Amino acid sequence: MAEKKSKSKILVIGATGYIGKFLVEASARDDHPTFALVREASAKNPDNSKIFQSFEELKVTILYGDLHDHESLVRAIKQVDVVISAVNKVADQANIITAIKEAGNVKRFLPSEFGCDVDRVEAVEPAATMFASKASIRRMIESEGVPYTYVVSNGFAGYFLPTLGQPNRTEPPRDEIVILGDGRTKAIFVEEENIAEYTIEAVDDPRTLNKILYMRPQDNIMSFDELVAMWEFKIGKSLKRTYILEEELLNKIRDAPMPHKIMLSIAHSVFVKGAAIGYEIDDSIGVEATHLYPETIYTTVDDYLNQFI
Amino acid sequence: MAEKKSKSKILVIGATGYIGKFLVEASARDDHPTFALVREASAKNPDNSKIFQSFEELKVTILYGDLHDHESLVRAIKQVDVVISAVNKVADQANIITAIKEAGNVKRFLPSEFGCDVDRVEAVEPAATMFASKASIRRMIESEGVPYTYVVSNGFAGYFLPTLGQPNRTEPPRDEIVILGDGRTKAIFVEEENIAEYTIEAVDDPRTLNKILYMRPQDNIMSFDELVAMWEFKIGKSLKRTYILEEELLNKIRDAPMPHKIMLSIAHSVFVKGAAIGYEIDDSIGVEATHLYPETIYTTVDDYLNQFI
Repeated sequence: MAEKKSKSKILVIGATGYIGKFLVEASARDDHPTFALVREASAKNPDNSKIFQSFEELKVTILYGDLHDHESLVRAIKQVDVVISAVNKVADQANIITAIKEAGNVKRFLPSEFGCDVDRVEAVEPAATMFASKASIRRMIESEGVPYTYVVSNGFAGYFLPTLGQPNRTEPPRDEIVILGDGRTKAIFVEEENIAEYTIEAVDDPRTLNKILYMRPQDNIMSFDELVAMWEFKIGKSLKRTYILEEELLNKIRDAPMPHKIMLSIAHSVFVKGAAIGYEIDDSIGVEATHLYPETIYTTVDDYLNQFI
Repeated sequence: MAEKKSKSKILVIGATGYIGKFLVEASARDDHPTFALVREASAKNPDNSKIFQSFEELKVTILYGDLHDHESLVRAIKQVDVVISAVNKVADQANIITAIKEAGNVKRFLPSEFGCDVDRVEAVEPAATMFASKASIRRMIESEGVPYTYVVSNGFAGYFLPTLGQPNRTEPPRDEIVILGDGRTKAIFVEEENIAEYTIEAVDDPRTLNKILYMRPQDNIMSFDELVAMWEFKIGKSLKRTYILEEELLNKIRDAPMPHKIMLSIAHSVFVKGAAIGYEIDDSIGVEATHLYPETIYTTVDDYLNQFI
């Protein structure tokens, strides 16, 4: 890690979202002065009361504003050194880049990625368009000369593992399981807290400046089949496996309405096309998080699954 | 049905989407001169080749354009009498309304609804915002004085029934099933071809002018439990049922990333809050499709499920 100096001030945009919450928490716990840009309506929404209570306990500074309110965006950005975006509407980040340029003080921008490397992924629609939209934000960042780190965090362990990828369940299945793809393509599962910790470690690190930060924790690179086998071993029971091979999966994607179409097409890119691990990291543009931050202990898939036995 | 005169010309926007394809087909088969507004990129996408081949066979006129290209929109709208939108990005329909006002020739606009009655639905986020966005398009239509029909088609049979609501499967389960909610709330399942047929019948019908067209085929109003029981009877076997009751479902919604969060929150509105049938139709604002068009034979859930035995 870079030598200790005063911690940079971090603004999280999309702070109440799935990964945004973890980023805010990791930033505050790592003693960065932490700011969250939130819409007033979001702060008033009772569904978010727990999140805002946690922000208060963490002494996060709430800044009211909106991606579509340019002044509020510039005002917020001027108060910080680093901007991390975790917004869902990826294309709207053009507004953030414009505001960063106007503010002129930002040392690092981390756009909303937190998935696969969108410059190195094979995908069908609608995932293809979604990935292209993230890639086009990368190109805008680069052409505007904004200092960046792109976070390729791969799969969300906390979303996938509790159900072993069975969307409507609330725990891993004990009788039968549907496997998208042939079960042999490797994917990578990273716990959300770890994703946020590695991301926060990277913001002040010169080694990640204008680089892609890949998260590839060695023990968590596993195929769907390996994952199921690990779970079967833990519960001492075999599951009936149903495989949805590529052709059938493509038919499902074609026939599914939104937003299910998006979920299935992302799964296709990961479990059929190998989005996580289908390429080597190019050292000239990318660095790997567990190599850079070996002292940060990550949660293994093996440990993670133990809580469900 | 209204007395026969020359069939109105129909433009479908969002023609290559899930429900758009059925609307184009039903319009053309019912001898309406049928137009589809499509982006050039969409026409060139090999994934869409089957769709465009079918449009050609149906003698559909392809108009190139884009929701965000105002001129193309006005030009397309000026050629027709009726505009049916089936776009996914509901809020973008403000552009359609603006173009309809400018064109000045449209006799009926059917915005992208094809779900529950967004003025009469209880929902949590993110479904709440999605429904509110559809409702705000309704308000804009009304305040601009655009003649309309809102199509409340309820559930897509062809999406839900082939898997009995188990997202990753490719056929109805034979061993176990996850039921969202307590299984007792009634939902409504309407085959996509029927949704499109009823919609096309409505476009020239004065009885549906400035009204909500509800689709409530009597035999297809069923609870999740009734659906499972019907399937169990057909296959002569009981399934192990796992219920995800409201509190657990709300937790899942809170913790899920997008877009799964959207799917679960829509399911919550339907299977917990009774979005389909939790209110009586108000005759002053709504009409029911099977009452208006009794000669149109709809596919029953019972018949639909037979193909999977």
